[in-house]
Formats: sequence, structure tokens, C-alpha cells
Amino acid sequence: MPAYRAPVQDTQFVLDAVVGLDRYANLPTFADASPDVVKAILEEGGKFCEQVLAPINLSGDIEGCTRHDDGSVTTPAGFKAAYQQFMDAGWGTLMADPEWGGQGLPYVIGTAFSEYMSSSNMAFGMYPGLNEGAQAAIEAVGSHEQKAKYLPNMVQGRWTGTMNLTEPHCGTDLGLIRTRAEPQPDGTHRITGTKIFISAGEHDLNDNIIHLVLAKTTGAPDNVKGISLFIVPKFLVNDDGSLGARNAVKCGSIEHKMGIHANATCVMNYDGATGYLIGEENKGLRAMFIMMNAARLGVGVQGLAMGEVAYQNAVTYAKDRIQGRALTGPADPAAKADPIIVHADVRRMLMDGRAFNEGARALILWGALQVDLAKKAATPEERQLADDLISLLTPVIKGYCTDKGYEIATASQQVFGGHGYIREWGMDQFVRDARIAQIYEGTNGIQAMDLVGRKLGQNGGRGTQAYLALVNGALADAKGDERLNFVSAPLEKALGDLQAATMWLLQNGMTNPDNAGAGATAYLHLMGIVALGHMWLVMAKAAFAALDEGASDTDFYTAKLITARYYAARYFPDARALRAKLEAGSEAMMAMPVAAF
Amino acid sequence: MPAYRAPVQDTQFVLDAVVGLDRYANLPTFADASPDVVKAILEEGGKFCEQVLAPINLSGDIEGCTRHDDGSVTTPAGFKAAYQQFMDAGWGTLMADPEWGGQGLPYVIGTAFSEYMSSSNMAFGMYPGLNEGAQAAIEAVGSHEQKAKYLPNMVQGRWTGTMNLTEPHCGTDLGLIRTRAEPQPDGTHRITGTKIFISAGEHDLNDNIIHLVLAKTTGAPDNVKGISLFIVPKFLVNDDGSLGARNAVKCGSIEHKMGIHANATCVMNYDGATGYLIGEENKGLRAMFIMMNAARLGVGVQGLAMGEVAYQNAVTYAKDRIQGRALTGPADPAAKADPIIVHADVRRMLMDGRAFNEGARALILWGALQVDLAKKAATPEERQLADDLISLLTPVIKGYCTDKGYEIATASQQVFGGHGYIREWGMDQFVRDARIAQIYEGTNGIQAMDLVGRKLGQNGGRGTQAYLALVNGALADAKGDERLNFVSAPLEKALGDLQAATMWLLQNGMTNPDNAGAGATAYLHLMGIVALGHMWLVMAKAAFAALDEGASDTDFYTAKLITARYYAARYFPDARALRAKLEAGSEAMMAMPVAAF
Repeated sequence: MPAYRAPVQDTQFVLDAVVGLDRYANLPTFADASPDVVKAILEEGGKFCEQVLAPINLSGDIEGCTRHDDGSVTTPAGFKAAYQQFMDAGWGTLMADPEWGGQGLPYVIGTAFSEYMSSSNMAFGMYPGLNEGAQAAIEAVGSHEQKAKYLPNMVQGRWTGTMNLTEPHCGTDLGLIRTRAEPQPDGTHRITGTKIFISAGEHDLNDNIIHLVLAKTTGAPDNVKGISLFIVPKFLVNDDGSLGARNAVKCGSIEHKMGIHANATCVMNYDGATGYLIGEENKGLRAMFIMMNAARLGVGVQGLAMGEVAYQNAVTYAKDRIQGRALTGPADPAAKADPIIVHADVRRMLMDGRAFNEGARALILWGALQVDLAKKAATPEERQLADDLISLLTPVIKGYCTDKGYEIATASQQVFGGHGYIREWGMDQFVRDARIAQIYEGTNGIQAMDLVGRKLGQNGGRGTQAYLALVNGALADAKGDERLNFVSAPLEKALGDLQAATMWLLQNGMTNPDNAGAGATAYLHLMGIVALGHMWLVMAKAAFAALDEGASDTDFYTAKLITARYYAARYFPDARALRAKLEAGSEAMMAMPVAAF
Repeated sequence: MPAYRAPVQDTQFVLDAVVGLDRYANLPTFADASPDVVKAILEEGGKFCEQVLAPINLSGDIEGCTRHDDGSVTTPAGFKAAYQQFMDAGWGTLMADPEWGGQGLPYVIGTAFSEYMSSSNMAFGMYPGLNEGAQAAIEAVGSHEQKAKYLPNMVQGRWTGTMNLTEPHCGTDLGLIRTRAEPQPDGTHRITGTKIFISAGEHDLNDNIIHLVLAKTTGAPDNVKGISLFIVPKFLVNDDGSLGARNAVKCGSIEHKMGIHANATCVMNYDGATGYLIGEENKGLRAMFIMMNAARLGVGVQGLAMGEVAYQNAVTYAKDRIQGRALTGPADPAAKADPIIVHADVRRMLMDGRAFNEGARALILWGALQVDLAKKAATPEERQLADDLISLLTPVIKGYCTDKGYEIATASQQVFGGHGYIREWGMDQFVRDARIAQIYEGTNGIQAMDLVGRKLGQNGGRGTQAYLALVNGALADAKGDERLNFVSAPLEKALGDLQAATMWLLQNGMTNPDNAGAGATAYLHLMGIVALGHMWLVMAKAAFAALDEGASDTDFYTAKLITARYYAARYFPDARALRAKLEAGSEAMMAMPVAAF
């Protein structure tokens, strides 16, 4: 059975060296995140994930969720008990507002914990993950009364939330939504329609489910400008907070999916269900996008999480599996064969994983810091900058980290040879679970279009300029230290490719938007390579500094520098290739007549 | 439910333009492969796969195989009936020797059919596929008596064969085999041991199963030099050809796998089973490698086959799915939205698939021709050349085509968005089925090591030189035609990268074998890009020629040239990046102490 160990030391390194948590101690919420508190959260949170969630991951995949004839859904054995422990320990309250019972810690801390949760049990982590998204939407656009009614129980995890966007004929293009909301004399609406792919749409983990549902009110424009958002609780909530009548919303079926079997992906039937408008009528999409942006970062975390746990298990196997001999001669002459970790090609797969995981962890936690700073930094300029940066990088974190997470999970499975293909080893689950992260919350193609079509030029390209300046600043900082050349030189070259690709897009995407579409995915990956490369430069600098200062854990910093070297040697070369693909334009792919496909 | 249409026109184009089947009409077996016969085989074979095998592919995945308490195994509904039709139509006899009841057609024709079979139902195709491999081993090293005893029924498909190599502790490193063969006074051996991952090891499709088993005879060296090959029939075969006693070999369990659920992957327990030595004692590995080399080409076909069927279904979905608008303005203003095939990023995924599929089909059939020529060409020089070429390219076809096949299957699934993740659409099966092809018959890492460590320098690099000369020759041929520059120029550059990488390996792999290991996979992929690029140059030239000659099907040739253009723009750029990764050497991946992982 696969195992998991939370990479607490690496998280702490990132929080120190990249995020620089101590620099923000003066800001609201950060004040409570003292080094001791953070250490305790990571260690205890890590233990919870290792000891409670990881052991029911494979069994949850095999058993899956069960829908009963009455529409109720049972989660796999052990999930309900684990969820109770999750609630009891308050793991869902980390980032929530103390006004509603949360611990009010920075987003960056909650994000660090969420990586551990997804690595240990991605399907489990989605229940609280969706709940957080729903809370964010209620926070953002709900009335005070609505917040007071729903948030306290949601924060405690006694109720969970869902997001209901997709319909059978309508995914990305939400203007096509057919679900109707008919206003009632008492101010409520009757919601009627079918939603699909509703993660955590029905389950037995707790008492109530608060569905957030996109629908069109009677007479609203039949396009994206006519979409409103509704709260539709599974059980109506009485004024005293107790649960009332069962609402007319039911799970019609659960999907048979490639992975995340332990999370119920439901078809939800709304049959004149009572709904409460949240936020302004016809402005539902805006609220949904608030929720979606946070969710996209969370999906990026899942990409990293799958890369990490798959890597860890591949390392264990590569050390244990005795087979063949090192090319340079027997590593263990007394034994009949060497462990396969002696092989450069096996290490290639492991180091690909490690270099991605550590780089992505840094990027994601740095990104999560921007989410905090966008709300809490001292000056409007700082808040603006942080918001610009995370706006730009959200599609990169979601798209690049999930594409790579799948790739790393696949490569880690490959280390196992035939055993990787067998369920008991758990590696195929990581691949299957990782796969969804490239698809949901906007496919990675949609992320790429968002990056190139919206984010790049947003506010006159302010965020893009700020980001390029940031990386250039890091390069300028590194100039004094020859030891950093191994990473700063290829980063500078890759940044040059990114800048050239940006110029190319600005020039050629205007005249023909298909050029932007044709290059979007290549551009997203190119920016991903630069973004992780930037993190590696920062981390290498910090590792040298720690060694210079005589840090005791020299093994950790030495390994960090070796991994930085691997990233530099093996990741940067793709930047030039991606630029070349982008600059090839759209002609070759648009020339084919539809009928000729 | 997914659908499949055999790409008969494209196969015929390749047989004409790349393979040049008519040039070999003077050779044995080719004489019978007249254009009419070939056309009939492809069309009828295609229909069989479309109408009989494709409809039971998804249901076979869902149902899987069932092992009963007595060790017997039932295949999914419809498989036995389909196999009966397969036998009745003689699809298994295409390439077999007429002496044993085969049709004696060229390997290249059988290979073309096997693509269709794998696309329509990969798990089904493995039953006859394994049978063919076992026949090849018996052909190669069996006595005349053994051939006469087993081959006729195997050719007809009344019996199938298996390959038993792997043991729980022993995959690539066959020296570790523990299965024992104890000589008996009657000349037979008693075989005792456990084999795992035995595809088609037990099933209910026909009357008997002929296991080919690697084992060590009593007193043999306990390493690769002590391995012998044995025939171990499920039912012993009497002298009159009738079936005798049930042998002491049993399926102990079937594996729960990520995919190919409809093929029984068995743990086989040999409990003093009667075995017959085939070939020389202690020379079993050589026989196994004969079988393995053919099998590796067959696995490359599976990579292509999964890429093709996944691509076809993604095209259908991209044309049908109405969602959003073209970036250049509504393509269908009367409708509420456009089909997603209007998007350049969707076409990127489709064209990636198409450019790979058509290129790989050409490479594989050209490779299959070399298998034919290695045995049947008129002169020893021609036979030698063909053997050198296919020796070199077998790991490329296996490794590159299966890596890309998985990637294309994944990208095609991505076109479906969330629906791609749901079982009913069948896309996740293609991904899961494609995954095994990267693993079995030697993982792709092993293929890369075989290429770099053995094939590259074999016979003083004779095959490598011949291959480079071949591609250079095609480039020289193209020099006269400016219209081919779009593909010949980047091919020339990529070939330069391949040559430089080859030189680098020769220089640096000698001094430190880890440099060869570290660059092996990059080298294999680089050669794959060149090999498909070479095919695209040949195909583009043929397409221009056909258009020049006023061929009637201008749409086909125009599409071929558009796809060639896509390949040139989007595949070649990776060549330089792969070379850079290879030239980075092994330092960054070998530097990490094992304990630091």
C-alpha cells in the first residue's frame, strides 16, 4: 500500500526563504501565525493526513461512493469517521474569519495544509475544499444575514458547500444555462433544472449541504448577463438555525469516473427547490468567479499534491526494488542485484518529480501569499501589486502545475514497471486522480486562453509588466553571486523567450485572435517554466546563504542545490521549444477544413 | 459510446507511398499480396474490427475478466463469440507459414490489420497477439516435431500461446528467475514456480493454452546463462493431436489493473507441471528475445492504435459539442454557440494526434517491411540492411510510439472536458489501456537503454550509419523541390541534432556510462521525432506527386500536406531541447546521495 509523509521541512523552508512569513508579522491575521503556531499546524496537520487520511485513500478508491434508491449517498468505509476527526481538530477552520468561528490564519498556511490533505487523500480533501469555495462566495456577495445563517456551521464543517455550474449541454459557456429561478411572493425563488458534475453534491459526512446554484430568473437575458446565484440548502434552515424541511433537490445519479472515486460526483436534480438569491440578480457570474479563482489555486495544489505523493512512493520503490546492475559496475557486489535507484534513467524520473514538486510548492505558497497581501497588505499599492500578480499567475498555477502533476504521477508510476499498473500498489490511483485536475475548474486549455486572452493585457498589461520586473529583479539580485550562474543564466534566457513570446502574442494575436489561441498552451507552459525557475533561483540563493551562515542541516541545503541544478539542466531547455511552437502561429492548425478531420 | 473507423485509405496510402509494396512483388510471400488482396484484407478486416470488436470494447472494460474458484477464467460477455468469428474468418492466420496452415502474407499486412484490431479493442487483440509471439518462438527454436504438434492449432487460433517471463522479484533482470525445471527420465521436465503478469494466461476463448516458460534446469548457472525455455501446455497433447491430461499449471489469481481489463493478466502457478524443452538448454533467453523483438513492434502498434481511436472520437466530439464562440467571431451566427472545433487550442490537440498517428503509421509499416525484408529480400546485403534498420528502430517504435500514444490519448480525452473523465464516453479507457504499452515488453526506459547501450554501437554502429544515410538520402532527394522546404529544412536541423547527440553519447557514454543512461530517454525521443519527420518528408513528397499527377482525391492529399505542415511546425522544435537535456549529462541526477531522496 502506498504511504505518505508530509514534507514539513520543505514547507517550512519555503515559508522562510520564499514567502518570508516573518516580514508580514505586522499585518492582520499574520500576527497570529507565529513560527511556533505555524510549526505546530504543519506538524499536527501533517500527522493527521499521514495517519488518518492516507490509510483510507486506496480503500476509498476501490470502494467508491454508493448512491441508494432514495438519492442518498454513502461515502467509503472510514470516511465519515475521518471527517469527524477533521471537524473535531478544526482543520477546516484554519483560514476562516473569526467572526464566523474561524481561526483567521493566513491563506498561505491553509494552502500548505491543503497540499498535505490532497496528497494523502485527494478525494477526501475535496469535501472541505468545495466547502471553502462556497464559503468564499457567501463571504464575498452574501448579506450579513446570509453569512450569519450559513457560515458558522459551514466553517465548523457541520455543513458543507457545493458549486453548481455545469449542465449537460453547458460547461465553459455558462450563457447556455437552462436552470430556471422563478420568483415567489415570499422573496424566495423556485429552482428547477439539472446540474451535472457536482463534486460532493450528496454524501453522508455531516448534517446539511449548502448548494450554490447558477440559474436564470424569469425574464432574465438568455445569456451570461442573465445569470444569478442562489443558495439552495439540502435542508432548509429555520430562523433559529435548526434544520427544517428537506428541500426539493436530489442526487439523481453518481458518475462512474476515471478517478477520485471516493468523492461523489453527482447529477443534481432541482425540482422546484427553494432558493435564496445571493448577491445581485444577473450578477451571479461575478460571484462565481470569485469562488472559481480561489478554487483554481486549490486545483493547482492538487497537481503538486499528486506529484509529491507519487514521487515519494517511487523513491521508496526505487530504493527497495533489487534488479539488474548499475552501469558503472555493481553498487552492492554482495547482493544478487542493485536497487534500481542506481540507474540514471530511473533518477531522471525521480528528479523530474522532485524538481517540479519543490518548485511548485514554492510557487504555490508564494501565490497564496499574494492572495493574503491583495487583501491585507499595508498600502493600496502593495495590495494592487499582489492582486495583479496572482491574477496573472492563477491560470499558470492551475494549468502548469496540474499538467506537470499528471506527468510526474505517470513517470512515478513508470518507476514501478509492471507493478505500477496494478491497483494494490496505488500508483495508478495517483495518475487517475491527478487527471481530473487538468480538466475541472476550467480545462487547462481554458486556463491558457484566460492567461493569453485576458490576464496578459489586463489593465494595460500592468500585471505582466510587474511580473517580468519581479523576475528581472531577482536576476539582478543574483548578479553578484557567481555560484548562482547555473540557474540565473538559463533563467535569463528563458525569461528572454517569455518576453519575446509575449511580444509576438501582442503583435500577432491582435491581427488574428487564432494566433493567440494557437499559442496559448505553449505560452502557459513557458511561463510555468520561468515561474518555477524564478522560485529555484530564490531557493538556491537561500540555500547558499544558509550554508554560508553555518546552518546545521547541511544535507537539506545541499540536496536543495542539487535539485536546483537538475531543474536548471532539464527544465529550461523546453522554453525555447515552446516559444518556437508559439511563433509558428495558427496557420497549420486552422488550415484543415472541418470536413477533412 | 465511442466509435471506431479503420483508416483504410491512409493505410493504403502508406503501403503505396512509403512501403512501396509493389516494388517487392518478386519476393516470396509478397507475390500473394496483390493490390486487390491487400485492399480486401484491409476493408474486410477493418469492418470486422469496427462491427465486431469495437462494440464490446467498453463493455469488456467495465465487466473485466472473472476468475472462478477452480482457477478457470471467464472473459467478458461477447468475447468468446467474437473470438469464434475471428477464428472463422481466419484473421489470425494472415502472416503464418502456409506449412502450418497460414496464409503466408507479408508481416507488413498483418501489422496493418493489427493496428485496427488494437484500436477497436486492445484487450481482445492481445489474445491473438500473444499467440503470434508464442508461434514466432516455436518457429524460431522449436524442433520440426514440436512445430508440427503445436503450430497448426495455434495458427488456427484453436489454441493460444503465452509468454511466461516475469516473477514477483524479477522483471527486467531475468537472471534472477527462480522457476525450476527438473529433468525426468522420459525427457520431459517438471516445472515448478510462480510467474506473474501473464497476459492471456487463462481464459475461456478456446481449447488449449500453450505456455512458453522460462526456467532454470537443475544445476544450471544461477544467472542469465542458465535460463531455458519450455513448452508447458494447459492440456497435454497426445501423439494423435488430441488433448490429454490437464497439466499442473493453474491461474492463482488475476490482477486488478489500471486498464486492459478484458485481458486476463494472471499469476500462474506451476506445480510440477510437465514441460518440454524448446531450443537449446541454457539458451532460453535468445529464443525469448526473438519473440520479444516482434512483440515490441506489436506494442508500438498499440501506442499508435490508442492514439488513432482516441483522436477519432475527439474529432467527433469537437464537431458535435456546441459551446462558446470562435475567437474570430461566430462561425455559426444562427446557433447559440459554435462547435468547439473552431478553437485553435482544440485543434492543437487534434492535430497533435493526427500528425503523430499518420507519421507513426508510416514508421511502423515501414518498420514491418524491414522485418519482411530481413528474411526475404533478394540479396544478403539487403537482408542485412533491413535487419540493421529494424534492430535499431525497434526500441524507438516501441518507446516513442507508446509514449506519444498515451500523450495523444490523454490530449484527446482533454477535448471532452469533464465528459472525458466519465466512463460512458470511453475516453478514459483509451488512456488507461494506452498506459500499459509504455510498461510491458520492457519499460520505455529499458527501450531507451537498449537503443543507447546496445543498438547504437552494434556492429560498429553499422545500423546507425545506415539509418542516418537513409534520412540524409531522403533529404538529398528533396533538394530539388522547393515545396518540400517546409519539412526538409527542420528535418535537416533535427537530424543535425540527432547526429550531434549521437557523437556526444559516443564520447561521453564511454567515459561514464551514466551519461548514456541519463540521456537515453531524450535520445530515444529525439530519434522518434526524426524518424516520424523522415516519414512526413516522404509522405509530403508523395502527396505533391499525386496532386501533380492529377489524382482524383485532392482532399486527401491536401489534408496530408496540411498535417505535414503541422508536424513540421509543432514537432521538430522539441529536437533541440532534447539534445540540450542529453548534453547536460548525468551529473545533476547522480549527485544526489541515495539517503537524500
